[in-house]
Amino acid sequence: MSAVDPPQETGRRRRRGERAAQPVAAKPPSQPVLPFPPLELVSKDELESIHQTALAVLEEIGIDFLHDGARAILKEAGAEVDPGSKRVRFDPALVEAQIGLAPREFTLHARNPARHLRIGGRHVAFGSVGSAPNACDRAGGRRPGTIADYRNFLRLGQTFEQVHFWGGYPVEPVDVHPSVRHLDALFDMLTLSDKPIHAYSLGRERNLDAIEMIRIARGLDEATLEREPSLFTVINSSSPLRLDTPMLEGILQMARRNQVVVLTPFTLAGAMAPVTLAGALAEQHAEALAGLALAQIVRPGSPFIYGGFTSNVDMKSGAPAFGTPEYMKTAIVGGQLARRLALPYRSSNANAANTLDAQAAYESVFSLWGAIMGGVNFLMHGAGWMEGGLHASFEKMALDADLLAMVANFLEPMRIDEAELALDAIREVGPGGHFFGAAHTQSRYRTAFFAPMISDWRNHETWREAGSPAAADAAERIVAERLESYAPPPFEPERREALEAFVARRKEEGGAPTDY
Amino acid sequence: MSAVDPPQETGRRRRRGERAAQPVAAKPPSQPVLPFPPLELVSKDELESIHQTALAVLEEIGIDFLHDGARAILKEAGAEVDPGSKRVRFDPALVEAQIGLAPREFTLHARNPARHLRIGGRHVAFGSVGSAPNACDRAGGRRPGTIADYRNFLRLGQTFEQVHFWGGYPVEPVDVHPSVRHLDALFDMLTLSDKPIHAYSLGRERNLDAIEMIRIARGLDEATLEREPSLFTVINSSSPLRLDTPMLEGILQMARRNQVVVLTPFTLAGAMAPVTLAGALAEQHAEALAGLALAQIVRPGSPFIYGGFTSNVDMKSGAPAFGTPEYMKTAIVGGQLARRLALPYRSSNANAANTLDAQAAYESVFSLWGAIMGGVNFLMHGAGWMEGGLHASFEKMALDADLLAMVANFLEPMRIDEAELALDAIREVGPGGHFFGAAHTQSRYRTAFFAPMISDWRNHETWREAGSPAAADAAERIVAERLESYAPPPFEPERREALEAFVARRKEEGGAPTDY
Repeated sequence: MSAVDPPQETGRRRRRGERAAQPVAAKPPSQPVLPFPPLELVSKDELESIHQTALAVLEEIGIDFLHDGARAILKEAGAEVDPGSKRVRFDPALVEAQIGLAPREFTLHARNPARHLRIGGRHVAFGSVGSAPNACDRAGGRRPGTIADYRNFLRLGQTFEQVHFWGGYPVEPVDVHPSVRHLDALFDMLTLSDKPIHAYSLGRERNLDAIEMIRIARGLDEATLEREPSLFTVINSSSPLRLDTPMLEGILQMARRNQVVVLTPFTLAGAMAPVTLAGALAEQHAEALAGLALAQIVRPGSPFIYGGFTSNVDMKSGAPAFGTPEYMKTAIVGGQLARRLALPYRSSNANAANTLDAQAAYESVFSLWGAIMGGVNFLMHGAGWMEGGLHASFEKMALDADLLAMVANFLEPMRIDEAELALDAIREVGPGGHFFGAAHTQSRYRTAFFAPMISDWRNHETWREAGSPAAADAAERIVAERLESYAPPPFEPERREALEAFVARRKEEGGAPTDY
Repeated sequence: MSAVDPPQETGRRRRRGERAAQPVAAKPPSQPVLPFPPLELVSKDELESIHQTALAVLEEIGIDFLHDGARAILKEAGAEVDPGSKRVRFDPALVEAQIGLAPREFTLHARNPARHLRIGGRHVAFGSVGSAPNACDRAGGRRPGTIADYRNFLRLGQTFEQVHFWGGYPVEPVDVHPSVRHLDALFDMLTLSDKPIHAYSLGRERNLDAIEMIRIARGLDEATLEREPSLFTVINSSSPLRLDTPMLEGILQMARRNQVVVLTPFTLAGAMAPVTLAGALAEQHAEALAGLALAQIVRPGSPFIYGGFTSNVDMKSGAPAFGTPEYMKTAIVGGQLARRLALPYRSSNANAANTLDAQAAYESVFSLWGAIMGGVNFLMHGAGWMEGGLHASFEKMALDADLLAMVANFLEPMRIDEAELALDAIREVGPGGHFFGAAHTQSRYRTAFFAPMISDWRNHETWREAGSPAAADAAERIVAERLESYAPPPFEPERREALEAFVARRKEEGGAPTDY
């Protein structure tokens, strides 16, 4: 198979930019590459009208930046900062000047070089669930997250090849004091796993601690770390049109060190954004542009991912909905908007189900459909997210890992050549025959097809005799097997010791302030 | 939103053909139209190599036609008929001459003109489950199909706007004698529902009875029926490379009367087809071309749908698998092959799950993903299919109706204009506000978003207090509500009486032979 069109990303060069060249690392074999152009659901003119509306929002209405330092930087760069409020307005030319500086593609580095990821272009990377306040499994039910559950999610996710990175803490370990939680949680993440990690933007100290911890874990000097993005932070705007203090501090700290900012407006149509999808996308785009402008003014060329999270709410209850038709559409147009800005695109594998039933599955696959066809590069909440993010599910992580593996297999090009076209095998078998015994089949059947972990294809009688298991039963079994067979990945002893020493020192110093 | 490219279907005219012009009927509002070009997963050259392999199969290996009359027709048309066997070989020019005769688009007529469907082009129509030997609901479990279950499926499916046609008997009513089953079953279908119907090709008498019954139900003379396709039959080849007697008889009878043939090879890769997807598709294409050639030789321009059903088997057990990555790929390339022949495209909403769990949902949505992105025009088994077709599920029909409605909503173009872009609303609400109270929201919120039947978006506490229902519980409730509130659609009394008289007469005559 070949792509029908040449990748759009290669057709346009960065217009200017002073960032250091990114070393191009090989992607892991498990990282899919989109074999077709992303779907364009709106026309170029329609896309441009969303972009222009966002520019009008930035120029006429403005964004509240709740951080004095950020406002000072923007004022210095030419933005109009209202002296009596936190409001910042942007001339369209100032915004447009920031487009094209950030890399279309970059490598997100892991402490294990085999886990480095290519972000952008047609590359796709899948992340774990992040930031759920509750954990859930079938044996223990739904409960507030603890460090024990947190560690088990790390162990479980480490075993799935299609979970490429950690999208934050899979579950919040609320039994660890907030002043030191980031130290313990990141230490666990860097020792129980070797995949790329996320840092929460919850105050300058936490950003700086995370940057230092990944530097130590990778064994780098500071200059190399600045050349090699090794950490990302998700910046959620406080929609509509507001960026709060810790989030802005996160942009400043991460962009300055050339680490990755994923700017994701939380624009639920009908609540924090207009009830129309076009309007919600215009607001999303305005907020993303505001964040992009700050990051690129702080450090032109710093890596930046455009996040789309626009969905709708249930207008009867106000409850957020995910994996809906509206979600699919905004996921796809979100990708178009990201490419309009020459940025990698983040979307999510989201659902609003309370339990691992058909709804959890169909909302997830609809989300994946929108994300993949939209050209997602960076899929957050890929494995384990449930209930609109309110709980992380162990069984859902296993089931999602299977869904992601199926998507990755779907994205592998279909081979079409003489051997694959199998005219000889068709001739050998002939009308009315059977292919199983053919040499063409025998030499290929073991690896011909994707073998899922969860799907139960036994005939009805055999399945019933086995106790009529549902997919959630299979997922529960897989979770138990994976946790049983888990082994921590190798870690250079001197790096681990240095990391332990850093954590111990920072704990002695009292950790980080809790009044962020 | 606008389509990015002009529809390919309008760019090419039928090269020749003598069929009567089709009256263009309005499609029902519930029938979706694909707003983007179908995905092209293989290049034009690769597609052509599959087509050429199929032509080589037809020329060198040939197809067994197990029907003397069909072979005589093909011989008369210039095919090479082996006198000592059932084998027929085709010169590529003879096959190519049959391409482009059948309509790219046509109307499939229902007895209720509001239910006429446009088939082909970018139009999409969704059918019910068809041909399951067993019925299943949660209360009664899985059991062989009966006329009582059959009728309840008709009543249920009639109530769902996104079930556009009947893909055969939803469940086989095995308690009705085979000699008269088609008479009772079609009478029920034409009276309990007013949607387009299918006729099984199980012997000449059954085809002719079905044609006569839809003629009576629509109140047409024979000439009008011949101008207005009102019935379709699914023709499955006995893969590999064989068409059996009743199926060939079905092509002859239906094509002669200008009714719709849906030729669907049953090409499970690794079993009845090569283990490689390209090879399985080449075989599928050869069998479809063989059926197309016969239908177009019998009546040039008769409506013909290209069916794709290629999937893989579980190579451990031989069990068929559906909704797999392989299924998605072949569904998409199947659409490319259909368009190569200028034909409407049939695919399916398939899964192999034994119960209405997460697997049933994810395999279904993956199937829909492949079918929709592949440009499906005619989706069989859209609602209610389970267990690889071995049972029809009432609850799955309700759940699928919701999935199909979501897909239809996804396919509705996103409106992008000044009102939708909502700059005024964003200005009115401003940074930090909330959109629910905005006039822009208030005037739209009741109809802004798709409202699903099944999805449960209640918060965790409310959901738990309600008994922690799963999607299958909601589906069960909807089935009960729909069957309770069902009312049969109006039917002109004189037509109904004529239909009753026909059925009575044919029963007196003994129905149809059972030795087909």
